[in-house]
Amino acid sequence: MALIVQKYGGSSVKDTDRIKNVANRVAEYRRQGDQIVVVVSAMGGVTDNLIRLASEINQLPSEREMDMLLATGEQTTIALLAMALHSLDLKAVSLTGAQAGIMTDGVHTKAKIENISPNQVHAMLDQGNVVIVAGFQGMTPDGRITTLGRGGSDLTAIALASALDADLCQIYTDVDGVYTTDPRVVASARKLEEISYDEMLELASLGAKVMQSRSVEFAKKYNVKFEVRSSLNTNPGTIVKEETASMEAVVVRGVSLDKNQAKVTLVGVPDQPGTASRIFSALASGAINVDMIVQNISHGTATPATDVSFTTDKPDLPKALKVIAELQKEIEFGEVIADEDIAKVSVVGVGMRSHSGIAAKVFETLGQGGINIEMISTSEIKISVVVEAEKGETATQQLHDTFFQTET
Amino acid sequence: MALIVQKYGGSSVKDTDRIKNVANRVAEYRRQGDQIVVVVSAMGGVTDNLIRLASEINQLPSEREMDMLLATGEQTTIALLAMALHSLDLKAVSLTGAQAGIMTDGVHTKAKIENISPNQVHAMLDQGNVVIVAGFQGMTPDGRITTLGRGGSDLTAIALASALDADLCQIYTDVDGVYTTDPRVVASARKLEEISYDEMLELASLGAKVMQSRSVEFAKKYNVKFEVRSSLNTNPGTIVKEETASMEAVVVRGVSLDKNQAKVTLVGVPDQPGTASRIFSALASGAINVDMIVQNISHGTATPATDVSFTTDKPDLPKALKVIAELQKEIEFGEVIADEDIAKVSVVGVGMRSHSGIAAKVFETLGQGGINIEMISTSEIKISVVVEAEKGETATQQLHDTFFQTET
Repeated sequence: MALIVQKYGGSSVKDTDRIKNVANRVAEYRRQGDQIVVVVSAMGGVTDNLIRLASEINQLPSEREMDMLLATGEQTTIALLAMALHSLDLKAVSLTGAQAGIMTDGVHTKAKIENISPNQVHAMLDQGNVVIVAGFQGMTPDGRITTLGRGGSDLTAIALASALDADLCQIYTDVDGVYTTDPRVVASARKLEEISYDEMLELASLGAKVMQSRSVEFAKKYNVKFEVRSSLNTNPGTIVKEETASMEAVVVRGVSLDKNQAKVTLVGVPDQPGTASRIFSALASGAINVDMIVQNISHGTATPATDVSFTTDKPDLPKALKVIAELQKEIEFGEVIADEDIAKVSVVGVGMRSHSGIAAKVFETLGQGGINIEMISTSEIKISVVVEAEKGETATQQLHDTFFQTET
Repeated sequence: MALIVQKYGGSSVKDTDRIKNVANRVAEYRRQGDQIVVVVSAMGGVTDNLIRLASEINQLPSEREMDMLLATGEQTTIALLAMALHSLDLKAVSLTGAQAGIMTDGVHTKAKIENISPNQVHAMLDQGNVVIVAGFQGMTPDGRITTLGRGGSDLTAIALASALDADLCQIYTDVDGVYTTDPRVVASARKLEEISYDEMLELASLGAKVMQSRSVEFAKKYNVKFEVRSSLNTNPGTIVKEETASMEAVVVRGVSLDKNQAKVTLVGVPDQPGTASRIFSALASGAINVDMIVQNISHGTATPATDVSFTTDKPDLPKALKVIAELQKEIEFGEVIADEDIAKVSVVGVGMRSHSGIAAKVFETLGQGGINIEMISTSEIKISVVVEAEKGETATQQLHDTFFQTET
């Protein structure tokens, strides 16, 4: 008898028919004798509707009250799913986050789980129940209702799996798992059987469609193995787990494409200690998320200067340019070049650590394809390049062919 | 500085505009320096929608899960009202029933309040907050969410007023207060300034439009004075309170008309000890609510027999007739006459205890109006008669004229 934690997101429970489907799936597992804890999100659209109501009343609603409001979404789903399981003659009880013992800090709308007291869940499992827990929510030690922010239900599932020492944690979503690249871009993309936490994190643009990085980071921290799979079919999904020795045999796990970034270059930045710090501190203060940063050796003779480039999310570009314009008053640099017409392509794999020559293979592939590389940035397990936006998909296709053609 | 508990029902908070109206009203009191606890119901229509969702999933939903589901309705309203008060620059916090310390027994969907621990509410009031409490709900000592059944939000308000030792409890509704009779039937009906708990209870058909009897009974038990008033204007309402000596000076407090009853007569019931008990026990077992019961002296000679009549709510009539048909196998009685075409008119007042001749005046009034009385039943403070349905409104009009003409 295994203890399985299953999580179903908003699209999997978006109406009463979908809730009945989830109940059927849970029932199949339960009837095999496993103990099941189900974590669910709010029904698709419910949260948006609550946010709309709040905005009709207050443009800047209190975060404490937003949590009180939004927590009703998951509470509705858990009760309905319990009723659906009862219809299938299964014992089931629902628990809010607080009732399930999920204690958080007091940072409303993006609380962190601090502790889980799983006694109540264990007791109810032992009585033969399927236990249904409201995702995305918890309670502070002084009794306030909190929510965990985006991707919070995944976090609930992974944290519960950890606290309950579950045998399996399944994250049900509307995709079949994690792919070697976006199947809409590259037809030969294939589903991965397994992936390490770090690879999942680095494949952000692939992974983010499936799961927020904070849930993956949490799983990594507490070493919770989980499976990402579809709630619409019974195909096995992708297992996300700690890196194993055998994983290193696979040099490249996936190729990701991100068309949502913009590039900013500051030309002729004085090459003095502290300059980079001032630039990026200013951007950070403006809550501008910076991804790649590239600075090359200085050129010029009298006053040494360098060019600094970075990428940021497209929607943040106007804010970033405003911060840079302010900076131009204190730091003397030349031109500022903004380019929204870019794509970032990344090749990720823990095998890179032990295999040399991957970067060369990336550049060679792109060179042969006549694709110009505008920026390069590498980490231990990732090589990212920035190319012209219109070349992004071709680059992804060619890199995928290079690293996966022998295996398909 | 007074401590005021205000309760607003579903129609007073049915959309975001109405919620803003409630916030304005609360703000007026708060700005006068009073401490305010607000109890609210679910937004009009929300509860029905949740019930519909449940019925799509399970025709006989678990009562525990219904409570989990329905409790979200009030939780939504409290958060939105808090946001509306923040928009008016007032400090406000919302509390679920459980957070407000409302402990109940474990009878889901119709739980009884067993105890209120008002520490949290007091603490938040002392911090300068308007405290908004979800009506209709509570928590069992072992942490299950319960709801209090119909009229539960009134009960929450009255119980909180008692636990907090509030100076005033205001029940806001969509009527101006309690009237001497239904203003739609008798144009000269006037609003009562005050009424005793017992009169309120006996004037059921008038009172029930305003408030469920269990809330009035609770208020009576704990001697909580409350005011029933409109959320749509600022007119003073009707104070419901313990009977005072001065109240007895008013012989008749009101005249109520109930067109929702049916009459059943069992003709020729054997006049033996235990027969009435068997009839009404059988009806009670069938959960059939019986209101008036009339049995007259026996007639006949060889085997003494009597006629037994009772009234019941019209929707219960088919069930009642089925129970009676079963009984006819064990108790030999003659005909069963069912009559849906009746109206019950009641005259109520604590002053009747000390004034004689009221019954005579009732009968005289109806006699002069040519209205035939089909059944009579009296209590210490109430005289009820059953008349033909089509004479109900005339009877109410004439009785109101008799007892209130000098005062209008």
